[in-house]
Amino acid sequence: MGIALGELAVRFGCQLSGDPDVVVDHVAPLQSAGPGALSFLANPRLASQLSATRASAVVLEPRSAAACPVAALIAPNPHALFARIATVLHPPPPLRPGIHPTAIVDARAQVDASCEIGAYTVIAADAVIGPRCVIGTACQVGEGAHIGADCRLLSRVTLEHGVRLGARALVHSGAVIGSDGFGLARDGGRWLKVPQVGGVRIGDDVEIGANTTIDRGAMDDTVISDGVKLDNQIQVGHNVTIGAHTAIAACTGISGSVRIGERCMIAGACGLSGHIEIGNDVVLTGMSMVAHSVPKPGVYTSVIPVEPIRHWWRVLTTLKMLAARERHGAAGQPRPHSMQQESNDE
Amino acid sequence: MGIALGELAVRFGCQLSGDPDVVVDHVAPLQSAGPGALSFLANPRLASQLSATRASAVVLEPRSAAACPVAALIAPNPHALFARIATVLHPPPPLRPGIHPTAIVDARAQVDASCEIGAYTVIAADAVIGPRCVIGTACQVGEGAHIGADCRLLSRVTLEHGVRLGARALVHSGAVIGSDGFGLARDGGRWLKVPQVGGVRIGDDVEIGANTTIDRGAMDDTVISDGVKLDNQIQVGHNVTIGAHTAIAACTGISGSVRIGERCMIAGACGLSGHIEIGNDVVLTGMSMVAHSVPKPGVYTSVIPVEPIRHWWRVLTTLKMLAARERHGAAGQPRPHSMQQESNDE
Amino acid sequence: MGIALGELAVRFGCQLSGDPDVVVDHVAPLQSAGPGALSFLANPRLASQLSATRASAVVLEPRSAAACPVAALIAPNPHALFARIATVLHPPPPLRPGIHPTAIVDARAQVDASCEIGAYTVIAADAVIGPRCVIGTACQVGEGAHIGADCRLLSRVTLEHGVRLGARALVHSGAVIGSDGFGLARDGGRWLKVPQVGGVRIGDDVEIGANTTIDRGAMDDTVISDGVKLDNQIQVGHNVTIGAHTAIAACTGISGSVRIGERCMIAGACGLSGHIEIGNDVVLTGMSMVAHSVPKPGVYTSVIPVEPIRHWWRVLTTLKMLAARERHGAAGQPRPHSMQQESNDE
Repeated sequence: MGIALGELAVRFGCQLSGDPDVVVDHVAPLQSAGPGALSFLANPRLASQLSATRASAVVLEPRSAAACPVAALIAPNPHALFARIATVLHPPPPLRPGIHPTAIVDARAQVDASCEIGAYTVIAADAVIGPRCVIGTACQVGEGAHIGADCRLLSRVTLEHGVRLGARALVHSGAVIGSDGFGLARDGGRWLKVPQVGGVRIGDDVEIGANTTIDRGAMDDTVISDGVKLDNQIQVGHNVTIGAHTAIAACTGISGSVRIGERCMIAGACGLSGHIEIGNDVVLTGMSMVAHSVPKPGVYTSVIPVEPIRHWWRVLTTLKMLAARERHGAAGQPRPHSMQQESNDE
Repeated sequence: MGIALGELAVRFGCQLSGDPDVVVDHVAPLQSAGPGALSFLANPRLASQLSATRASAVVLEPRSAAACPVAALIAPNPHALFARIATVLHPPPPLRPGIHPTAIVDARAQVDASCEIGAYTVIAADAVIGPRCVIGTACQVGEGAHIGADCRLLSRVTLEHGVRLGARALVHSGAVIGSDGFGLARDGGRWLKVPQVGGVRIGDDVEIGANTTIDRGAMDDTVISDGVKLDNQIQVGHNVTIGAHTAIAACTGISGSVRIGERCMIAGACGLSGHIEIGNDVVLTGMSMVAHSVPKPGVYTSVIPVEPIRHWWRVLTTLKMLAARERHGAAGQPRPHSMQQESNDE
Repeated sequence: MGIALGELAVRFGCQLSGDPDVVVDHVAPLQSAGPGALSFLANPRLASQLSATRASAVVLEPRSAAACPVAALIAPNPHALFARIATVLHPPPPLRPGIHPTAIVDARAQVDASCEIGAYTVIAADAVIGPRCVIGTACQVGEGAHIGADCRLLSRVTLEHGVRLGARALVHSGAVIGSDGFGLARDGGRWLKVPQVGGVRIGDDVEIGANTTIDRGAMDDTVISDGVKLDNQIQVGHNVTIGAHTAIAACTGISGSVRIGERCMIAGACGLSGHIEIGNDVVLTGMSMVAHSVPKPGVYTSVIPVEPIRHWWRVLTTLKMLAARERHGAAGQPRPHSMQQESNDE
């Protein structure tokens, strides 16, 4: 679907430099873009890519406009403008209302007539699916689950019983929402399962990545607020609360009963210990470990970047020697030393 | 299903404080509990929640009984008592024996007549499924797989060929049991696959979380002992052995041929290097890295909690500086920290 | 299928010590092997296992041959030889060409007549599946996806639209290939989705583990080169490039736009920050964090192995104390210093 730059400028209220009749019909990176492509200057330091681009137009910020060799759509937040235009140029596949003959919809489920339900999907009793939803192939919608309007579930998504999804959710393949929390009581040397009778409540405009798992609450609900974005392979434990517009990157694990504030940005592979509280606007860098509450906004990290292995062992050995020296005092008498000896000191 | 407190006290052998005719029919947290609710005081420090509760009864330990404003069921291990009663109040959905017409059961598979087999589940030749199992929708039970009595598999669980599950297993959606181990032989600059011909043997009373993966052995079996509890998104490599009643939280990765003892508690997102041995009763805190064997009981960690990023970089810089100083430094002469000496070393 | 040692020696060009008429028909570990078993001495330090073995024959390297009490197949790289022979003794199940009656193949899809397509698998329009592929049960092959010759997908593998798999791919259960990258633009306090319009291109001879996820590119493709081996539960972000013959162990997370070279070995649970470059022949130990590019070959780590918790806290406390002392100074003299300078010492 081609759109003229003039129309885009009007529709999105941005400035246009260049011929308003030029038409774009897809997005492409600066380096590989050709005729018809709309491109995007993500980073002003990539000016060399800009000067060589063959895109029909580029979305960029005002200070980069002069250097643009082709037409430009100019906005103070070019990334957001680009996202909006790309969504118009590359819309999701059109809705084809209807229930695939192999889908199994319980007689007591309510599926809006405008929905598209894929092959081999199973929708249990008392489930409710709002208008214009697309449920892909091989999904399971459990008993009493509710799905709001305009949601899109890709293939083999599982919503266990009673899970509630708001409007406009996008759930990627393999996600499991509403599995039991890891609730165990120790009884002598054994474990007793604690039934997990809470639910999962998910707000509007939430995205959930492939193979991500979200556990149901033990007694209360697990809560994912409006606008939260979860990447792939994230684990959300029981009774976690995630505040609105928080984004979490792949492989992060959130232990039970953690409370995360609004507008946080949590990078990939972080770990959050149980029962802690993360305030609003907290940023965590990748692979950080959060063992205590972090109430105040800011950027937090515990990252240790790799080094050549021999160098790293020297660093680690030094640290342990210094720790021993502090402990034994005597202002730094060096001692022959090994990790093993250290342990035996205990 | 309502039960009188007096009946619960008799059935579970615990002390009752209050009216034995009071009936409870569900569990709820102290703060939100209302009439009919049985609640639970997890932590004596939450006494303020106890004093304000509107639950019909609370499970707690003896020292908290006096402060309870409502009826109390009293036990030295209230968490275990609560788990037992909650299991009575919130039983799993009743078994509905029968094979869904869309399930495909190979003529050479043996499925006990008391089982419930869900829609779109595929059971291959020579699979054996014991009495009273519930196999959810879209599961795959591979050739020659054995499932003991009273197991419950939720949706789209995959048991690859030959996997053996004991009695009373609970396997959550998306789990894959019996996938190939990561066995590769280097051959010049390329990799050759080493066929993975071992199996997976899982004991009784094991729980396996959503999207968890357990690899089959290379030649011998991967072994999960009785009473082991695995949370979501855990990876168990080939030939791993996990001892009885060990519990492992989400996102932990266990490399091949690791041997873990009994009654261990391994928190979330830990990593265990290949071929190491963890003794009985070892506790690992979250995100710990185990690179060497840990034979003795105890609590082990390598956690580094987050700090504000500027502060953290200072810590890391200091560490590296000290390592460099030790390295260059005058054969172990302790030195006061000063710029001058540092400069002379460089 | 039994094969005589003499035949194996000829076929694989290795030296034989012992009776060429001895027949082996399966592989087994040294300790548990019995008649008919071919075993393998992985590590010369396990010589005691070798001397006690009851295997019919053992694959080993020349320096271990003298100590072998049974027949031996001798090669400079015994692991590779063993992999080759084991593949002959334990071939994958034979191909049974045909499309299961419950599989749904779009009229516009092209499935080679030699393929085996499992129950409840759905193949969308314009998908192309090459000769001799085995697609297991409950897989989804999206619109326009291409699968090369001789591929094997186990159960419930999802290939989203347009994904391209080369020849001889082996994809384990639950893998999701071609899910949306985590592309978001911040807009005030909210997130806008950036449509992910790139694809995924996967070379020949690639293995992909259970529940691994590989995101499609934002605009360009995500690229996995020939011979790459990915273990279970790996996350590959959008626009990642992985060079030929690189092997990556389970639970590793690779952020968007990372470029990884050829023949790298990345252990389990590593984390790679976005937009960095890893050169050829780089080795990362388990749970390492890579925050910056690593252009040169070598072994890199940031591992901190566990210690008893009380000891560990002392180490951590010391580190922070030293950091504070450095900062406030030997008489408060601030010193110019940076990690960069430190690194330049090497």
